Amino acid sequence: MNIPVVVYILGRVLQVEAAFMALPFFVGLIYKEQEAFAFLIIGAVEFLVGWVFSRKKPESHSFYAKEGFVTVSLCWILMGIVGALPFVLTGDIANPLDAIFEMVSGFTTTGASILTDVESLHHCSLMWRSFGNWIGGMGVLVFVLSILPLAGAQNIYLMRAESTGPSVGKLVPKVRSTAANLYKIYCGMTLVEFLFLLAGGLDLFSAVTLSFANAGTGGFAILNSSCAGYSSYVQIVLTVFMVLFGVNFTVYYLLLTKRVKQAASCEEMHWYLGIFFVASALIVINTLGSFDSVLEGVKHVAFTVASIMTTTGFCTVDFDTWPEFSKVILVGLMFIGGCAGSTAGGLKVSRIVIYLKSVKKMFAQYLHPRSIKVVKFEGKQVEHDVIRSVNMFLITFIFIYVGSMLLVSLDNHNFETTFTAVAATINNIGPGMDVVGPTQNFSGFSPLSKVVLIFDMLVGRLEVFPILLLFAPSTYKK
Amino acid sequence: MNIPVVVYILGRVLQVEAAFMALPFFVGLIYKEQEAFAFLIIGAVEFLVGWVFSRKKPESHSFYAKEGFVTVSLCWILMGIVGALPFVLTGDIANPLDAIFEMVSGFTTTGASILTDVESLHHCSLMWRSFGNWIGGMGVLVFVLSILPLAGAQNIYLMRAESTGPSVGKLVPKVRSTAANLYKIYCGMTLVEFLFLLAGGLDLFSAVTLSFANAGTGGFAILNSSCAGYSSYVQIVLTVFMVLFGVNFTVYYLLLTKRVKQAASCEEMHWYLGIFFVASALIVINTLGSFDSVLEGVKHVAFTVASIMTTTGFCTVDFDTWPEFSKVILVGLMFIGGCAGSTAGGLKVSRIVIYLKSVKKMFAQYLHPRSIKVVKFEGKQVEHDVIRSVNMFLITFIFIYVGSMLLVSLDNHNFETTFTAVAATINNIGPGMDVVGPTQNFSGFSPLSKVVLIFDMLVGRLEVFPILLLFAPSTYKK
Repeated sequence: MNIPVVVYILGRVLQVEAAFMALPFFVGLIYKEQEAFAFLIIGAVEFLVGWVFSRKKPESHSFYAKEGFVTVSLCWILMGIVGALPFVLTGDIANPLDAIFEMVSGFTTTGASILTDVESLHHCSLMWRSFGNWIGGMGVLVFVLSILPLAGAQNIYLMRAESTGPSVGKLVPKVRSTAANLYKIYCGMTLVEFLFLLAGGLDLFSAVTLSFANAGTGGFAILNSSCAGYSSYVQIVLTVFMVLFGVNFTVYYLLLTKRVKQAASCEEMHWYLGIFFVASALIVINTLGSFDSVLEGVKHVAFTVASIMTTTGFCTVDFDTWPEFSKVILVGLMFIGGCAGSTAGGLKVSRIVIYLKSVKKMFAQYLHPRSIKVVKFEGKQVEHDVIRSVNMFLITFIFIYVGSMLLVSLDNHNFETTFTAVAATINNIGPGMDVVGPTQNFSGFSPLSKVVLIFDMLVGRLEVFPILLLFAPSTYKK
Repeated sequence: MNIPVVVYILGRVLQVEAAFMALPFFVGLIYKEQEAFAFLIIGAVEFLVGWVFSRKKPESHSFYAKEGFVTVSLCWILMGIVGALPFVLTGDIANPLDAIFEMVSGFTTTGASILTDVESLHHCSLMWRSFGNWIGGMGVLVFVLSILPLAGAQNIYLMRAESTGPSVGKLVPKVRSTAANLYKIYCGMTLVEFLFLLAGGLDLFSAVTLSFANAGTGGFAILNSSCAGYSSYVQIVLTVFMVLFGVNFTVYYLLLTKRVKQAASCEEMHWYLGIFFVASALIVINTLGSFDSVLEGVKHVAFTVASIMTTTGFCTVDFDTWPEFSKVILVGLMFIGGCAGSTAGGLKVSRIVIYLKSVKKMFAQYLHPRSIKVVKFEGKQVEHDVIRSVNMFLITFIFIYVGSMLLVSLDNHNFETTFTAVAATINNIGPGMDVVGPTQNFSGFSPLSKVVLIFDMLVGRLEVFPILLLFAPSTYKK
């Protein structure tokens, strides 16, 4: 393990997080909140610590998958803990464990909250929560990569460990340019959404925070009613942008570089949109009569399906009261998630498609043992080791899932609550069903359950392996 | 597709089922029930039809995996339908769909019932239900193979399609002798259990039916209270035999042939017993105070864990009232199931162990990319194609599971009921939780749900692929 490099990168990440705290600080100043100084103080100390960590440029550049996983995991855990300190200091979330839960939920774009009254928070804290969604959406390491000159193989290993989906495609040969391009697209789209929301009559603060929480598919809202109180225009804008942020960002890069045909032929996007429309249609039919009009139903269902599938977690209605068929569809969507290379969580559409195609291939081989079949995705053959790692991902995911359910079940909530509390955190969604349904929150869980769910949020955001390897003793053996 | 062979074997199987109906007929005669003649009539007609089917020995012996899957699936479906006819004719289960549900539940050793009052059934019907558990446990095709001289490769393909677990090990080089040996062990163990139960003061009828239902890990009981009313001695005998019938039968064959050391070193058995003891211990601790004494608790918990893990489904207590932690453990055990090559259902312990070891291997490879690791099980390297098929099994299983939940959720039961109704049928257990809990039954489901659950029971017993291939159009293409 090349510890100097790990420490160096950790230092840089802490400095970046510290710099990000400037935003809530200034927002607090504008609203004349003295709590804003919590962000200034924590930010300043963090920046100093980061500076100390990264003072010495590491001599050895040896950096492999192992170092990449450990670095990324440590960064995310540290960021969650340090990012939670201002909440404790301002008193907005006095309990440290709750504050860490809230912050990790923010960074991992989960959006699950332990707050019973969001509206009682100061503006600086509200901004930090939503900003956390945005920062975590694209990934902090990706950000660091896009501005930091790192040598050697660090880039690709860091990016692989932080990015989502079965494999990281580089947009351009250089990892650093890829990262920068991703961030440009991300910023641009967030800005466009912000302008659309402003145009709908939202105040500046709401428009900024909603755009952040939406872009990261995080789902932290600033009202206790989440998004139920907004106009239809705002709700529709949010629906459209939730769907857009769940698409593989490669598509947008292709569009930017005028390769429209290539962008339009993205297979994962076709499946993603197909699932979105089929699920919405089924739920609209199943909930007919629950809404004032069919159009009203379509609006709320499309919003909910987009919110759950992209793992955002915004709500306009209490979908926990829908018929069981609709709820089972929603629970299914929780696991499917959005596209790889988007800010969405879940297993990712591409993995599901690869599973489906592998099963189809196996059937063909049972029937015609001598034929040779391959799994094709996005027009290319999926290599055996990708299929294997996709399979192992699912199996590891299930083991963690079952283990988490066991520990959370010690709280003695019912099966639906236990099952969907884990689903909502490990898939980075936010709300589950019943006790953790859209009108509820996670405050009722025991400290043990909260720790387990924090772990699950990190496991979900970093896609299982980095976090597990961080805790595996063999990682540190020679 | 070599249709003549398929028809020939179908005919033989029908004849065997017809012969089996002699038992309920004679039992009915003993109890002077005129309903017994339903079994005589159906049995006679079935025997004739079977004779017509198998009159002509097929000329071509070409028989591959495809034919094996289709034959086995068709046999099981036909047997379920024909086996249900006496229930309809006697009026014991007048509704044909309910009768098929009950019979398929019997043959697949599920033990899920649509009956609200088991005790109102005639003795002949009760015997047929429990005997169905026994017949299905070891498999009808295995029985046919052990008595029927079939030429060519039919034997191994039929046996593979009907047996459980990741791969069929032949006890002896000849498939026919393997099948015969399995049945000898099966009969012997059933007889020993029967004697133990008789010794405990049970009447002849109870001892026979319980032995049958236990040996097949089916779980059809003859009292509405399942096994709650029996003495502690009987309950303990049942616990021991449930555990014994969940062990890989290869172990018993090794014991019979005096290879004690080899038998004792069966890795799957070690895991199986380990899981049994750990799960029991955790639940005993979790339910402390719910029973009159710790010993009483141990007795009921061991019974329940054995019953669920071996997918038998007998009950002595209403485990649906246990704390959520215990219930989550039970739901987990539902999926693990017993050993491969036993009469138990579920995913099988061997698959779970292979999953665990594959994950461990993948971790090692992440950390040391240049090292070469293999997955070892039972002292031997697990081949890549076994691992692949074990993975595909899980993925297909999940797809069927989700699809089933969607259809069953149309009945609008709660999440726990929908989830465990599918779990209890696809894993061939019997009781689930809540509406399908141990004191309840499956009578409240819609016809659609019953058809889905019948399908799931067959999918579970035949381990996914045979049934799916039967319905795949490409199976019948040239």
